[in-house]
Amino acid sequence: MTTSHGTGPLRLGIAGLGTVGAGVIKIIQRRAALLTARTGREIEVVAVSARNRDKDRGVRLKDYAWEDDPVALARRDDIDLFVELMGGSDGPAKVATETAIATGKDVVTANKAMLALHGQALATAAEDAGVALRFEAAVAGGIPVVKALTEGLAGNEVQRVMGVMNGTCNYILTRMESAGLPYDEVFEEANALGYLEADPTLDVGGIDAGHKLSLLSSIAFGTQVDFAAVELEGIQRIEFADIEQARDMGYRIKLLGVTQMTGRGLEQRMSPCLVPADSPLGQLEGGTNMVVLEGDAVGQIVMRGAGAGEGPTASAVLSDILDIARGIRVSTFGQPASSLVKPVPAKAAAPAAFYLRMQLQDKPGALARVAAVLGEAGVSINRMRQYSHAEGTAPVLFVTHKCPRAALDAALAGMGKTGVVEGEPIAIRIEEV
Amino acid sequence: MTTSHGTGPLRLGIAGLGTVGAGVIKIIQRRAALLTARTGREIEVVAVSARNRDKDRGVRLKDYAWEDDPVALARRDDIDLFVELMGGSDGPAKVATETAIATGKDVVTANKAMLALHGQALATAAEDAGVALRFEAAVAGGIPVVKALTEGLAGNEVQRVMGVMNGTCNYILTRMESAGLPYDEVFEEANALGYLEADPTLDVGGIDAGHKLSLLSSIAFGTQVDFAAVELEGIQRIEFADIEQARDMGYRIKLLGVTQMTGRGLEQRMSPCLVPADSPLGQLEGGTNMVVLEGDAVGQIVMRGAGAGEGPTASAVLSDILDIARGIRVSTFGQPASSLVKPVPAKAAAPAAFYLRMQLQDKPGALARVAAVLGEAGVSINRMRQYSHAEGTAPVLFVTHKCPRAALDAALAGMGKTGVVEGEPIAIRIEEV
Repeated sequence: MTTSHGTGPLRLGIAGLGTVGAGVIKIIQRRAALLTARTGREIEVVAVSARNRDKDRGVRLKDYAWEDDPVALARRDDIDLFVELMGGSDGPAKVATETAIATGKDVVTANKAMLALHGQALATAAEDAGVALRFEAAVAGGIPVVKALTEGLAGNEVQRVMGVMNGTCNYILTRMESAGLPYDEVFEEANALGYLEADPTLDVGGIDAGHKLSLLSSIAFGTQVDFAAVELEGIQRIEFADIEQARDMGYRIKLLGVTQMTGRGLEQRMSPCLVPADSPLGQLEGGTNMVVLEGDAVGQIVMRGAGAGEGPTASAVLSDILDIARGIRVSTFGQPASSLVKPVPAKAAAPAAFYLRMQLQDKPGALARVAAVLGEAGVSINRMRQYSHAEGTAPVLFVTHKCPRAALDAALAGMGKTGVVEGEPIAIRIEEV
Repeated sequence: MTTSHGTGPLRLGIAGLGTVGAGVIKIIQRRAALLTARTGREIEVVAVSARNRDKDRGVRLKDYAWEDDPVALARRDDIDLFVELMGGSDGPAKVATETAIATGKDVVTANKAMLALHGQALATAAEDAGVALRFEAAVAGGIPVVKALTEGLAGNEVQRVMGVMNGTCNYILTRMESAGLPYDEVFEEANALGYLEADPTLDVGGIDAGHKLSLLSSIAFGTQVDFAAVELEGIQRIEFADIEQARDMGYRIKLLGVTQMTGRGLEQRMSPCLVPADSPLGQLEGGTNMVVLEGDAVGQIVMRGAGAGEGPTASAVLSDILDIARGIRVSTFGQPASSLVKPVPAKAAAPAAFYLRMQLQDKPGALARVAAVLGEAGVSINRMRQYSHAEGTAPVLFVTHKCPRAALDAALAGMGKTGVVEGEPIAIRIEEV
């Protein structure tokens, strides 16, 4: 067994020395004996690359060769494994990864954007070159969910995968709830704390989490990564009133990713959802991530942990590195890239119950008119609440019975014509978890 | 890569056709195409063995060779992998496993008792023979926790592993709470439902869960399995009053396993503990299992899922089988058996806060006498509650500040001499999770 004898040192080239890259190097330096005991091999950093050579990263780099150009690093013939921690879906990260593969190196990456957009091409290239391409750190930070899904649940037909996979959004939503603050204010707080990406839409628009979801879809269903088909909705329109009302009804609002294979095709959604407050997803606080895996044999497996940060992300990167050191080889998305099928995206999400909030004018028969529009569209009402009037309008809440989103959209489109609804109604899906 | 080309079918011999064995065969029959897509190989059952050939197990067996003797099955030269699902720490399971190893077969087992008692010897034998010995299904059923700890967290120095790993005990405790029933009554219910082992002490005495904990300890700390050193305490003495009082103070009682490497040695405990009601462990209901992994880099990872049952356990067995089909080879306890060190057991558990309940006689100065005994033993009181008197005695609760268990035991030993405490005081550790 590889683990019991080893096969000489595993030589790494690490591109990208931000928080995660520095974290990976710290672990390799501090835990050298432990890592060797576990893999039977020395884990050796040979060369590194980053934008700025002079920056103090709190880690000793002088024993490693330096490359200004990550592509030159990827091409070096004294490394076995290229660790890509630069980020960015295209540009240097992609070229360097392609170069590493083309020159016969295994690759470990934390780059969800690159894999969400180019995963199929890169996995195919890796397969053709006979090298590994692994990405545990790209999804849900420290939670070993890629491994759990690819290997731990390999005996299951996967039914559904759900996840809260953007810690920043979960922080914003739980902070709005606990502090009773509006979205804009908490967004500014999060920004000041450095929690947001340079382009905050990546976080609050659900794009980053959507990237992660699309990768899990591919493993779960044996399909080619299809990020373009992920139905994306961000958290920007969520108001404190919705969070408060959801809580009153026993729900919490989460930016929830759901992927499932249905008779109508592959359904991938990343959107705000109401989930039961007493479910594991509902109980999730702050920046923590959670992924729920559902298989036909195993039932529901819930995994929870830090979704970002130096230590957790470095832990995930190390997991891939040490797998490779141990001789563990698994196809990027759990089966040969050539066997992944192009998914047919579901045209519409599965029917669901919805939470609806609207401002109703204080006119006789107003509620009846709204109810009629819902009924005509085939949307039936499960629960309704009307609150005390303020300045001529009253907030009204509905929880519908299960209905297709199209029926709900038809009803929403008809609300304007009632002449009694102020502004845009808010509709949020209620997910059965 | 093994995954992309395969190397002919993986031929299995399965010993033990109870719920789990039949479940494994069902998956192999139903999901043949999926399993082959994922591993690049056919998974083929060649021969099986069980006590009774004629029993209807709801699964087609006629295509497989039959062996009355599992040892003969283990010895067959037309199998690559021996799947041991008989159970029992010694006897046929152990002999068959040893035979399979000695004749060059990989082994997958769900047998926690056998590994807890003979894990080091079996892992050494497997290593010497160059075969794999894997046991995902032996710990926490369907939760892929052995893989998560061995591979997913391989870059971490593990700090602590905790778990609720006996679904029957958790069922009994949550049922006592929800129905307000005494232990004996719920025990009988659980027995009637078939939830208990033939020897129920294995469950309610914490032995089964202790077996599992000892296996996780070995992986976590690179130590030889040392089940004998697990400090075991069952749930038999837990009364509804304790559950109720714990809840009132924001806690729930769980049969909790904890293993951690301390300056005083390896501490392994399986015992009832109070945990915060709003923690993931505190929120765990019914027969579900949960394992909490803490590493220096990753922080806290929580995994939750079904700890028993046909599907979940078969899923875990399949995970090991498919790993082997994919060519994944990891040492039984995460590093070569020869490198596992003999642990020094900690003589005493780390200091903790404790919950104490006792019946106090309604005499002047009674409370003062009890408080004095606690104080003299060095146990200081954090919270105290005295309830209304009934028939001359009053229930009194204490939550202590952190103290060594020895100090608490000294105080408990002194309670008899106060002349005011009726019966035996109840003491339950409060675990910081």
